[in-house]
Amino acid sequence: MKATIERATLLKSLSHVQSVVERRNTIPILSNVLIEAAADGTIRLMATDLDLQIVDSVQAQVEVAGATTISAHTLFDIARKLPEGSQVSLEAAEGKILIQAGRARFNLSTLPRDDFPVIAAGDLPTSFELPASTLIQIIDKTRFAISTEETRYYLNGIFFHVSEDPQPVLKAAATDGHRLARVTVPRPDGAEGMPDIIIPRKCIAELRKLLDEVDGSVEISLSASKIRFGIGNAILTSKLIDGTFPDYSRVIPTANDKLLKIDPRSFEEGVDRVATIATEKTRAVKMALDRDKITLSVTSPENGTAAEEVPGDYRSDTFEIGFNARYLLDILGQIDGDVVELHLADAAAPTLIRENDKSPALYVLMPMRV
Amino acid sequence: MKATIERATLLKSLSHVQSVVERRNTIPILSNVLIEAAADGTIRLMATDLDLQIVDSVQAQVEVAGATTISAHTLFDIARKLPEGSQVSLEAAEGKILIQAGRARFNLSTLPRDDFPVIAAGDLPTSFELPASTLIQIIDKTRFAISTEETRYYLNGIFFHVSEDPQPVLKAAATDGHRLARVTVPRPDGAEGMPDIIIPRKCIAELRKLLDEVDGSVEISLSASKIRFGIGNAILTSKLIDGTFPDYSRVIPTANDKLLKIDPRSFEEGVDRVATIATEKTRAVKMALDRDKITLSVTSPENGTAAEEVPGDYRSDTFEIGFNARYLLDILGQIDGDVVELHLADAAAPTLIRENDKSPALYVLMPMRV
Repeated sequence: MKATIERATLLKSLSHVQSVVERRNTIPILSNVLIEAAADGTIRLMATDLDLQIVDSVQAQVEVAGATTISAHTLFDIARKLPEGSQVSLEAAEGKILIQAGRARFNLSTLPRDDFPVIAAGDLPTSFELPASTLIQIIDKTRFAISTEETRYYLNGIFFHVSEDPQPVLKAAATDGHRLARVTVPRPDGAEGMPDIIIPRKCIAELRKLLDEVDGSVEISLSASKIRFGIGNAILTSKLIDGTFPDYSRVIPTANDKLLKIDPRSFEEGVDRVATIATEKTRAVKMALDRDKITLSVTSPENGTAAEEVPGDYRSDTFEIGFNARYLLDILGQIDGDVVELHLADAAAPTLIRENDKSPALYVLMPMRV
Repeated sequence: MKATIERATLLKSLSHVQSVVERRNTIPILSNVLIEAAADGTIRLMATDLDLQIVDSVQAQVEVAGATTISAHTLFDIARKLPEGSQVSLEAAEGKILIQAGRARFNLSTLPRDDFPVIAAGDLPTSFELPASTLIQIIDKTRFAISTEETRYYLNGIFFHVSEDPQPVLKAAATDGHRLARVTVPRPDGAEGMPDIIIPRKCIAELRKLLDEVDGSVEISLSASKIRFGIGNAILTSKLIDGTFPDYSRVIPTANDKLLKIDPRSFEEGVDRVATIATEKTRAVKMALDRDKITLSVTSPENGTAAEEVPGDYRSDTFEIGFNARYLLDILGQIDGDVVELHLADAAAPTLIRENDKSPALYVLMPMRV
């Protein structure tokens, strides 16, 4: 293999692929990036952790086609430090690669391309397109609720499924048992009959980074066990979580009869302020709801008490309910409008939070005893 | 105590004092800031870790003079989160303080002001002024060489001493045994006869932060065991390290006969690049000096080899020497000019690095076997 590539192009592509590579690997080749130079002037860079694979294609001058694998983090660090605007020459032969740019020369060990594991996507019968902006919205409004508890592995991702609601929709949901976030969008053409899938957290994180760099649409193809995203020049392929997502619709309250409408910004700031003195472990904030007056308070055995009144539109019975401040702030941080609705029942029942009944995103938050 | 203070004023002052307070304290009152409101409309905020003490004075409306102590980090977090432009009311009585701003109210536990430990500065016979910019220069060009090895506690700070050189000068030096940094400035009026002192690392760090906010001069008073800095409205008092700094002048080479003059920027970038593949532990970079040609190289058993040629002005015998890349980069990062001089002797002897023979800063770097 012999090729020359612009440093900026190489760096950008490596920044896409290197974050898939885990910092510590027991299998040496998983630390490497596969570099494939084709005679048509394309270089493909590929990285994998065996569950997630990324392939990025870039333009280069290819003198001799070929392929090799080399430490992804080392190559990324080298590319970062090479002079701006330089041309990087890559020349691989006999278990070594010679990298030259400006006055710098690196002669690094490689591993054979044939040892590099490739995820066979197999047959991906469902395929559709989603605007990048829609996918960004889905991810941003749900990913904070993804569980990190490894024993409940089926909650370690975002659940996607289609339904007739009564219009055909695509729903994305994440939960950790304490809070639930769900986004509903119109079902894209081609998604009808798609299997229920759970996309793992790491795939979501890499996808989200790539989405920042594209306009237009993302091509999605999937089966019950694999998913592939085509994002600009990059292709992200991931295994799906092999598990059953709980029937979350049962925890979405439908008969909560107490409605609070409140400015999400002053609500958020008030919660954040009183939570300053909350115990690190529980982070419990109490909300006392009275006619058009919401009192947020925290009592901490070590620190003392904090309270703040926030005006809100509330006309039901006076009552008190407690929430984890962190969880409440995560949700309020996703509300863009001027008003947020909290649909409450009692101090022990899940609360429904949404901008209004038209908004694609909906949140359910379990209360805490305070 | 009852007083009202602008949130921005309180926040700025707390940002000065809270970083002196250690995050974990076995003595509860050391977590607190002492707040003293005087009838003349001044509030003094004081924090200490028993070795270092800071007092900051700010203007406020004081209705009832008095004093109390309260958790420094909690008060800082509260002040950060209070609405911009708000007025903060502080009202202390009977073991509690009531803090109010906007619609927020905090009622927090306090500890008695009489329990708050104050460092008695004692008699400080030497006193002089230094321009803030000079003190910044001294600190920035030496602090990176301060040792973190606790067993050699006498190296855990910057050593200051005066001498006739043959002009009267003030010298500041730091070393960790691998590298030495020294800055020499004209002796300020009043510093004659001052004792040799070692200012501890934490005092240096807090002082450096405060210096960013002042113009003009810093008032310095000291004895053999304590030092006090007057910086704007803040007074920083520190115990000095009770130990003997080694006679560092013996390690400054005076007869190194091989001179390399080189552009510090391309030298720095070259070292940084080849060091990418260096073993994390040793970080060894080899320099091969040939007539007007310097070759930097790294050999790593895991990664391979890296080399870069950097042009330089060198006319002595060809030879090779190794350095810790991190240490070399630390020094080069402090060189502002277009040329840096390396005075070398042989592969085992300390190397002298400086901009030129007029520059106030001088560095000595021990070589490594490569």
